[in-house]
Amino acid sequence: MDIPTAAISRLVIYLRILETLEAQEIERTSSSDLAERAQVTAFQVRKDLAYFGRFGTRGMGYTVALLKRELMRVLGLNRIWNVVIMGMGRLGQAIANYPGASDYSFGYVGLFDTDPDLIGREIRGLNVRHADHLRAFAQATPVDLGFLAVPPEHAQAAAQTLVSAGIRGILNFAPTMIQPRLIAGSSDVSEEWRQVSVENVDFLAGMKRLAFYTLNPHLRPSELKPSELEDKASALSVP
Amino acid sequence: MDIPTAAISRLVIYLRILETLEAQEIERTSSSDLAERAQVTAFQVRKDLAYFGRFGTRGMGYTVALLKRELMRVLGLNRIWNVVIMGMGRLGQAIANYPGASDYSFGYVGLFDTDPDLIGREIRGLNVRHADHLRAFAQATPVDLGFLAVPPEHAQAAAQTLVSAGIRGILNFAPTMIQPRLIAGSSDVSEEWRQVSVENVDFLAGMKRLAFYTLNPHLRPSELKPSELEDKASALSVP
Repeated sequence: MDIPTAAISRLVIYLRILETLEAQEIERTSSSDLAERAQVTAFQVRKDLAYFGRFGTRGMGYTVALLKRELMRVLGLNRIWNVVIMGMGRLGQAIANYPGASDYSFGYVGLFDTDPDLIGREIRGLNVRHADHLRAFAQATPVDLGFLAVPPEHAQAAAQTLVSAGIRGILNFAPTMIQPRLIAGSSDVSEEWRQVSVENVDFLAGMKRLAFYTLNPHLRPSELKPSELEDKASALSVP
Repeated sequence: MDIPTAAISRLVIYLRILETLEAQEIERTSSSDLAERAQVTAFQVRKDLAYFGRFGTRGMGYTVALLKRELMRVLGLNRIWNVVIMGMGRLGQAIANYPGASDYSFGYVGLFDTDPDLIGREIRGLNVRHADHLRAFAQATPVDLGFLAVPPEHAQAAAQTLVSAGIRGILNFAPTMIQPRLIAGSSDVSEEWRQVSVENVDFLAGMKRLAFYTLNPHLRPSELKPSELEDKASALSVP
């Protein structure tokens, strides 16, 4: 089955919306309600969810708590993720201290850097270790994901260190793109990289979009009327 | 002209890619190269850019530095943005200390909270003020954007405080969705909110997508071959 990456990004948005609804003690929603809040069409919502099963009741919509639990299961947020952070400067410390990651059982098990001034320092109950010890560490402790918070010029090498240590999921917070297929500057990916998933985070993406929409308010998504968000397909009698 | 919001999100990704290329001292790129790195089709890249003008030379592709400058202009990143942060707890402090915002001339001019323990504290050269003083502050100092970093249950009220102070751009970092059109629980938006742009940031979106792709490596975008990313349309003799 071929699931567009945009659909996964939208699942994450639907989950955030469901969490908001739950916090507001709203118990039921519908594809049109989710669509309006996510600024997509109801057909898109139903199509995205359909990749993973049938979550609603024909014509009845969705139970917020149930759909939230299902999306968390689909995304793999119902299990523990052991995470190491590579790079414990200001960015790495901001990430380690960011409130909320633990809500999804992302747990930091190791912090690494190469700066002598940082090594040994205790952050959130963990001592920063030298990056050279990551491989040995990962052999002793199961590590699921590695978060990269090094300066951009070191991101590629630090990513290689994570992969060499056997880590198969990388979240890159460095302001540069890490791309397995492009690492060799060609379409050839080494066997070990072939198994690696990378997500590049742009902390500033929201600021940049906001700058655009603040200068171009007439192009704002919030200008969309619910009617414009609906479409023929939503006439189908599915949730 | 109707520009899909997804196109703006992709412009932000193209900009990040161009910055990466520039850092790697790569001077020229093409719609297919950008497409491969952004995991979209070359046709999509050309279509997104075409909303804002013709940036390349027929058949010659793009000059990295030029296209980067043009995208920064389109996004409004070539001007100064005066920013206030509402909520100076751990999240607000992490945002204030995040390295990089200043690269795009987002400048913090005021920090606000309601917690007596935080008010008066100096963070990055600014003293935290009481939220009640925001309106007076915004009358004395031009404020372009407000970043929300309050607990989710206070986000809506804090957003209203920003809007009442005349701020028309809100970046919401609280783990909840702020939506002008939905604030009244209806499709009616008050006049002042009608002029407001809001971007909701999910710091954890990348972690959630990574969790999914690490559990489902066969669905990874990096599995796409350049060939799959090309398409008929790219036969057109445009960059």
